Amino acid sequence: MCDTCGCGQPPEHPLKIKRIHVVRDVREARADIVEHNRAHLAALGCPAVNLVSAPGAGKTTLLERTLSGQPGGSLGRPAAVIVGDQATDNDAQRLTTTGAPVVQMNTGTGCHLEAWHVHDALHQLDLPTGAIVFIENVGNLICPVFFDLGQTANVVLLSVTEGDEKPEKYPEAFRDAALMVLTKVDLLPHVDFDRGRCFRFARALNPELPIVELSARTGEGMDGWLEWLAELR
Amino acid sequence: MCDTCGCGQPPEHPLKIKRIHVVRDVREARADIVEHNRAHLAALGCPAVNLVSAPGAGKTTLLERTLSGQPGGSLGRPAAVIVGDQATDNDAQRLTTTGAPVVQMNTGTGCHLEAWHVHDALHQLDLPTGAIVFIENVGNLICPVFFDLGQTANVVLLSVTEGDEKPEKYPEAFRDAALMVLTKVDLLPHVDFDRGRCFRFARALNPELPIVELSARTGEGMDGWLEWLAELR
Repeated sequence: MCDTCGCGQPPEHPLKIKRIHVVRDVREARADIVEHNRAHLAALGCPAVNLVSAPGAGKTTLLERTLSGQPGGSLGRPAAVIVGDQATDNDAQRLTTTGAPVVQMNTGTGCHLEAWHVHDALHQLDLPTGAIVFIENVGNLICPVFFDLGQTANVVLLSVTEGDEKPEKYPEAFRDAALMVLTKVDLLPHVDFDRGRCFRFARALNPELPIVELSARTGEGMDGWLEWLAELR
Repeated sequence: MCDTCGCGQPPEHPLKIKRIHVVRDVREARADIVEHNRAHLAALGCPAVNLVSAPGAGKTTLLERTLSGQPGGSLGRPAAVIVGDQATDNDAQRLTTTGAPVVQMNTGTGCHLEAWHVHDALHQLDLPTGAIVFIENVGNLICPVFFDLGQTANVVLLSVTEGDEKPEKYPEAFRDAALMVLTKVDLLPHVDFDRGRCFRFARALNPELPIVELSARTGEGMDGWLEWLAELR
């Protein structure tokens, strides 16, 4: 019982025991759109990469460097980008200068992209056959992981400034990733970050997880990322 | 109509038009717990500070430095901490060494603390009258902002490694903050971060927003943060 403020309420929490059965309908509607997206991408032979990270881990900078000189460029094949943000089209503006087609989706108060954002965006893009579709999700290391968009692979980015223990603290983002990209390695001399410790935490969750280490600012390590993308079907 | 994959589905999105009326009950249950927390804290004369930021912005490091030598220490008054994380009690272990009482709440797949987490934690803490209760929310610059915990003030942390445009891109976190703390200023020489640009974006959303710049690693700027806390009632 709560004695401090004298309210006399028991310490049970109504939120823990409520069930909202109607959610099942929403899940079914979501699943339909996911399958739609998957079929749309498969029909065009386009793999889709869902980039997930905390805000400021360097998703946009990585894509800028990856896509410079589109179509083709260092990627060697065409690409397009779907960018999610709560507000602004800043990232889309930055990426448009690469020459790749870009669609910005604003989520407002929303914390992740939904399959219908990707559906909307796919219908705004004129995708060449075999293009890679990069989905730059909203900067959030938690929620985007739980929403299937119809993508081929999840890539989780972690910057060295965030701390080496983050895979252990945010396990869901690392558990199902097809690749981990450690970003901003040019800052390693200035921060306390133990790469070995970080990778042990990540591979405790996902034993076969490939890891690429790079700095999109200096270009160091970009080859490993481009090689991984080259094998993506 | 979607022609690419031949599914013939219209581009409307069922998720947009669904309404889940039962959510109202959940909101009411939440509001009751929020009021309970607020009364509990008021009865003890304890202000509560909800720290919100992206993962790795330095919430725990700031609290370590703030609370060293508890009870009392550089803060000059007792304090306690409620720590939210998806997994691990790493942050609580770090903070316990300061001498302050600490309760860790794990959210599992959850992306933010709920009022009932704080309620549970308050009933585990033996709070001295007038102590500051720091609530270190889950690392997420979006979701925690939308859940009232009964706190006195929201403090948003942004690290200089995340980029100067973040207030514009994640406006909700900055709009209602009582204070913004710019962290990791020791890294300013190594990153592209325009302080003036960042502060303009933040104050376009929240014109009177006070801003403290500090490095919890070097101790630079900690006095401004301690002064702000000293005035908190």
